[in-house]
Amino acid sequence: MAAPETPTLDRVAGPADLKSLDDQGLVRLAGELREEVIDAVSQTGGHLGSSLGVVELSVALHAVFNAPMDKIIWDVGHQCYPHKILTGRRDRIRTLRQKDGLSGFTKRSESAFDPFGAAHSSTSISAALGFAVARDMGQATGEAIAVIGDGAISAGMAYEALNNAGDQKRRLIVILNDNDMSIAPPVGALSHYLSALNGDTPLHSLKQLAEGFEAGLPGPIRDSARRARQLVRGAVRPGGTIFEELGFDYIGPIDGHSVPDLLAILRAVRTRATGPVLIHLRTVKGKGYAPAEAAADKYHGVAKFDVASGAQRKAKPNAPSYTSVFGQALTEAARRDPAVVAVTAAMPAGTGVNQMAEAFPARVFDVGIAEQHAVTFAAGMAAGGLKPFCAIYSTFLQRAYDQIVHDVALQNLPVRFAIDRAGLVGADGATHAGAFDLAYLGNLPGFTIMAAADEAELTHMVATAAAFDEGPIALRYPRGAGEGVTLPECGTPLEIGRGRVISEGDQVAILSLGAHLAPCLEAAAQLRSDGVSVTVADARFAKPLDQDLIRQLARHHPLLITVEQGAAGGFGAHVAQFLAREALLDGPLKFRMMGLPDRFIDQASPEDMYAAAGLTAADIRMKVVEALVPDRKVTPLRA
Amino acid sequence: MAAPETPTLDRVAGPADLKSLDDQGLVRLAGELREEVIDAVSQTGGHLGSSLGVVELSVALHAVFNAPMDKIIWDVGHQCYPHKILTGRRDRIRTLRQKDGLSGFTKRSESAFDPFGAAHSSTSISAALGFAVARDMGQATGEAIAVIGDGAISAGMAYEALNNAGDQKRRLIVILNDNDMSIAPPVGALSHYLSALNGDTPLHSLKQLAEGFEAGLPGPIRDSARRARQLVRGAVRPGGTIFEELGFDYIGPIDGHSVPDLLAILRAVRTRATGPVLIHLRTVKGKGYAPAEAAADKYHGVAKFDVASGAQRKAKPNAPSYTSVFGQALTEAARRDPAVVAVTAAMPAGTGVNQMAEAFPARVFDVGIAEQHAVTFAAGMAAGGLKPFCAIYSTFLQRAYDQIVHDVALQNLPVRFAIDRAGLVGADGATHAGAFDLAYLGNLPGFTIMAAADEAELTHMVATAAAFDEGPIALRYPRGAGEGVTLPECGTPLEIGRGRVISEGDQVAILSLGAHLAPCLEAAAQLRSDGVSVTVADARFAKPLDQDLIRQLARHHPLLITVEQGAAGGFGAHVAQFLAREALLDGPLKFRMMGLPDRFIDQASPEDMYAAAGLTAADIRMKVVEALVPDRKVTPLRA
Repeated sequence: MAAPETPTLDRVAGPADLKSLDDQGLVRLAGELREEVIDAVSQTGGHLGSSLGVVELSVALHAVFNAPMDKIIWDVGHQCYPHKILTGRRDRIRTLRQKDGLSGFTKRSESAFDPFGAAHSSTSISAALGFAVARDMGQATGEAIAVIGDGAISAGMAYEALNNAGDQKRRLIVILNDNDMSIAPPVGALSHYLSALNGDTPLHSLKQLAEGFEAGLPGPIRDSARRARQLVRGAVRPGGTIFEELGFDYIGPIDGHSVPDLLAILRAVRTRATGPVLIHLRTVKGKGYAPAEAAADKYHGVAKFDVASGAQRKAKPNAPSYTSVFGQALTEAARRDPAVVAVTAAMPAGTGVNQMAEAFPARVFDVGIAEQHAVTFAAGMAAGGLKPFCAIYSTFLQRAYDQIVHDVALQNLPVRFAIDRAGLVGADGATHAGAFDLAYLGNLPGFTIMAAADEAELTHMVATAAAFDEGPIALRYPRGAGEGVTLPECGTPLEIGRGRVISEGDQVAILSLGAHLAPCLEAAAQLRSDGVSVTVADARFAKPLDQDLIRQLARHHPLLITVEQGAAGGFGAHVAQFLAREALLDGPLKFRMMGLPDRFIDQASPEDMYAAAGLTAADIRMKVVEALVPDRKVTPLRA
Repeated sequence: MAAPETPTLDRVAGPADLKSLDDQGLVRLAGELREEVIDAVSQTGGHLGSSLGVVELSVALHAVFNAPMDKIIWDVGHQCYPHKILTGRRDRIRTLRQKDGLSGFTKRSESAFDPFGAAHSSTSISAALGFAVARDMGQATGEAIAVIGDGAISAGMAYEALNNAGDQKRRLIVILNDNDMSIAPPVGALSHYLSALNGDTPLHSLKQLAEGFEAGLPGPIRDSARRARQLVRGAVRPGGTIFEELGFDYIGPIDGHSVPDLLAILRAVRTRATGPVLIHLRTVKGKGYAPAEAAADKYHGVAKFDVASGAQRKAKPNAPSYTSVFGQALTEAARRDPAVVAVTAAMPAGTGVNQMAEAFPARVFDVGIAEQHAVTFAAGMAAGGLKPFCAIYSTFLQRAYDQIVHDVALQNLPVRFAIDRAGLVGADGATHAGAFDLAYLGNLPGFTIMAAADEAELTHMVATAAAFDEGPIALRYPRGAGEGVTLPECGTPLEIGRGRVISEGDQVAILSLGAHLAPCLEAAAQLRSDGVSVTVADARFAKPLDQDLIRQLARHHPLLITVEQGAAGGFGAHVAQFLAREALLDGPLKFRMMGLPDRFIDQASPEDMYAAAGLTAADIRMKVVEALVPDRKVTPLRA
């Protein structure tokens, strides 16, 4: 399909070029920008719906403000494709989310126009307030503008930032992009509240309004930003909103797809605001592309697709995804035990708990983007006698670390943590890597931690977690398709803290934890053809360690290697501590740990990312060979 | 001083005994309970002001509700002394916060009347909602009641819980204990909002009100909870509050020191509530004890004191506290560099940033109980060119883990983390232990992590952090008094990633990180008198490791031991990984790690807690001796 014709966009090399367009030119630019986004994402896949919802806003912001001196901070950052096109990255827009290509999110290291990168939700107001303080203290930075969705603003962190910004009273612009959707339809009382706000008042033509008060005011009063803001606000909504109660001036709701209205209101705010202002926009996720507007998820994240029909080209995987296997196993556990409940933080489909919700809707709780609450709410349910599964991606579970420590681990409450997206995740890149959970959970007293080597193991681990009621238990598993193994009819609880030996040898023991077992087995096969006798074991449990198994491996092999899909301080570290304590390192045993390296790894396919991490089967084989046939470099002592 | 006379309290063995007291008896009980709390805390020290503020509420709750079937959840839990006295723990109340005594907080393992323990803030509503769900699903649990302060309810987590509870519409009671104080006076827009709420409407005598509507309604309407709530609410405040906008019924403000009013309103709510209700109480921190009411901090946390005068018996330490040394060094850094700013999450005095605030008030930001926002706000300031110090206790920094990963580490922003209360902290017990930061920060790419061996080192580390602008940097130091070493005139930046050798020997190398250097030196002295030649080194940096130093120690000593005040997965784990990678464990080197054990340690003096942890000088000496003269137990292989 031919690329769209974009004569106006073609003349835009950067935001400065928007300054020479009149308002009608900016309207044309928005139309062309939308076509360009659709065409680009049809080739790369990505977050289409969110980006289509902010096309007009992206144009208006760059027309009115002066980035990069002015700081435009896109919350989550997945709606940034129009912004990237306008800020000098159009030539690479068709490399989005690809290896060595543009990130699918905003990223400081990618462009000066991305002053504060994101990918997790609800950080933008805090960051913008930081820039506002820096400006007020004389640093070379201009306006601070946060663009945040109605789902993201419901998170506690955004509330903390509003509360602090409303108190500090600095000039700060928050744009609420209210499309009544996050990834799933948003939940929570605030969502109802915003709907009521929208329902209360018809959308106003802010152009007339803004032109009216700008032109009509006498000179001295025109300069009074306070009065002007009161006029704007008073005309739109007479009563107080929750945002005003938190110290913001509130303007809205406004049609977020009207370039003239957006220009008028942004110009007015830029001229007159003295304190924190919240501009409430109504937008449509997927706006302007019929297949997206018609889809239930508004094309939140799409594969490559055909522009004419909207048909997505999702490759049919050879095996079910870990997520869907988890969803099935959880539903089965819920069927067997009426005390099983599930909690998700705004990701019912992403985590697979939507499968359980179909069968048992009253036992699945979507609490919104609120991981802190999700975990303690689950802890409360566990204390009340229920068996909660808290299903949160590894990277997002970081949001609830203190709740895991303080509310779950310290009280030894049997909350089940289903940790999807463990390890490297592909196109979402470093921000979404599930790298740290083995370290941040492994040090918590009383925790039981499992990692699934394949989807059949996952089924057994869900059954194990459902049956285990003595304390907190976690199971981690990766993004994507399983190994294609046969799934059991139903899961069987595993013995806690017991691993399994896959194959036996006597020269090297590879002790794998979790989903990297396949490369370990591949490395073992290569090593056997090299003439090396290899034991491969699957630890199954990162905690408690299978001490008998580890002793046996350490005593009967000259070389022991641990392999995990996680950063330092996790499984291998705990094995090392055990070996040291048991004096098993005192003798000639060679010990190595393999895991994620001490750096962040940019987006690519998971395979490419693991290659970049030095964790391929070939890497494992090489590590074994180097250890067995050492040629150590002698590093000079320090003088 | 004689114990107070408490004839009514003496007849209360548990909450059931309150049911036989009439309302005037309950008023008398509250008076006696207050005297008992004052007398007990005068002997133990503790959180006096908070407990005095909820004496009447504690009596009214236990008179109206039926704990432990009904779940009363005290947020933070430090105001629980009256509750503990009423719930069968009066005989041990003078062991509060002592070794083997009652915890200073609520604690599930201590009593069935503590259904959900706490110590960190803002968890109670989430937990209560969990109990409400369990009740509605048929578990044997009754009412769910959260008691939360105006400081705690400003945290994002509490907002997430209100938002979800307002959406779920279950019967749930939240009591807002509004004393216009948290540990420090609360900040933030919500605080102003609550003050305005209180200012809008005079306190009403709810007794008349409640009695009136209960008696006066005709039968069918009396049973209509909705109508009753409307009556109560309508009489007190006609407009909508922020809580009503989030889906709660709002009742208040009410005099929280009037037992009759509290009884009336709690009885009305118990009879009539169908959904979530928020009862807004006005209370006075330190109520009823003149020295507490007069003090600026309302006796938030006190030492043992004289009841008549209120004079606290604080022992004069031999050395300045690490906190005050940090405060001084920070102020000095701020004086030298106008870009230095500081952030605290509601703990200006606890963290020592109040010292900087005295000199530079506009450069110190107290954001309230909002650790998530605090960290990303600091990241925004760093991105804007400032040099933020984010001063948060180790245990509370857990609240901001994702922000550290996603907003600071991934963007390599130079936020300085000043981590007070690292290691074991004494009377506050396991909930406040700074045990996990070395593990949860150590695995983050690009982080620099220092730990101070004494207060002079801390001064140098503050200077190091101020000078270091290449990425995130953390410094950890313990609670309490320093070692009494001479403080430098001003700090000198340390070389990044470079430790120091304190003393040299050749049989064992003790590699200490941070404030456990003193016991290491003591162990070394003992070992020398045992005839063992000991090297002691101070790593200074947990990251990056001083690789040259570690190589040298590993190559020139048959035994290397790491010692740290932290849980597994931290410094020792990273040393182990380095040794393994460099093949330094392949030979006869013996390696051991010493740190906090894999269990939570109850409150006692820090010395007693480290003894319980197996980290005394004697323990270190014993570990060396056992490793040098091994008598290993042979564990049988698994069959």
